[in-house]
Amino acid sequence: MSGALEAIVEGYWQAAVERDWTAFGKLLDNDILYEVPQTRERVRGKEGYIDFNATFPGDWTLAVDSIVAGDRQAVSRVTFEVDGQSMTGISFFEFRDGLICRITDFWPEPYEPPARMTRHIERY
Amino acid sequence: MSGALEAIVEGYWQAAVERDWTAFGKLLDNDILYEVPQTRERVRGKEGYIDFNATFPGDWTLAVDSIVAGDRQAVSRVTFEVDGQSMTGISFFEFRDGLICRITDFWPEPYEPPARMTRHIERY
Repeated sequence: MSGALEAIVEGYWQAAVERDWTAFGKLLDNDILYEVPQTRERVRGKEGYIDFNATFPGDWTLAVDSIVAGDRQAVSRVTFEVDGQSMTGISFFEFRDGLICRITDFWPEPYEPPARMTRHIERY
Repeated sequence: MSGALEAIVEGYWQAAVERDWTAFGKLLDNDILYEVPQTRERVRGKEGYIDFNATFPGDWTLAVDSIVAGDRQAVSRVTFEVDGQSMTGISFFEFRDGLICRITDFWPEPYEPPARMTRHIERY
């Protein structure tokens, strides 16, 4: 089953990059719930979620860095590029009857680290 | 195998919360590589990585929100609490011979969302 979920997530990102909203929509449950905990944004339902993606501004693209798929959930990490800016996106996927029914998205941004108590840290 | 990796990640967080650095260390490969892409911080090796955790300041605790484990990798999402502050931590785990050999950690912080082009977004 983990292979099946991995294939769904691969298809999801491929459809998004290709702006193939028909193929994209076929992977989504009608009642999909999309949330971004960092901004407390939420989109409910397939129609709205396709619109959110289809209207996303800029000539963006992305590369999938990794997909970890279990029996019931999957997580992807992507590098999203738009307007010369590069961002990491981390998406937690949940499924119902082979369709994506929930996505919880995180967009971690660079920050200056706090003082550390250990001498074992280096910067790269 | 995914059950085995899930158990390792559960044991990792339990040992951390209990400050049981002996149990914690038994789950780590000697050459573990820990990285935080947001700060470009890196720790190499079991000794340093235990020290990084054991010296982490504050009376912190955490709760595991979810673990997604595949055949070779796993991801956890935790809520980390320290000094009345609550943070989300997302950790990607890689394994070698049943031990954690690499952790890539993300700490996404709240931000104000950009203008969206869709009317389907709500805030929560």
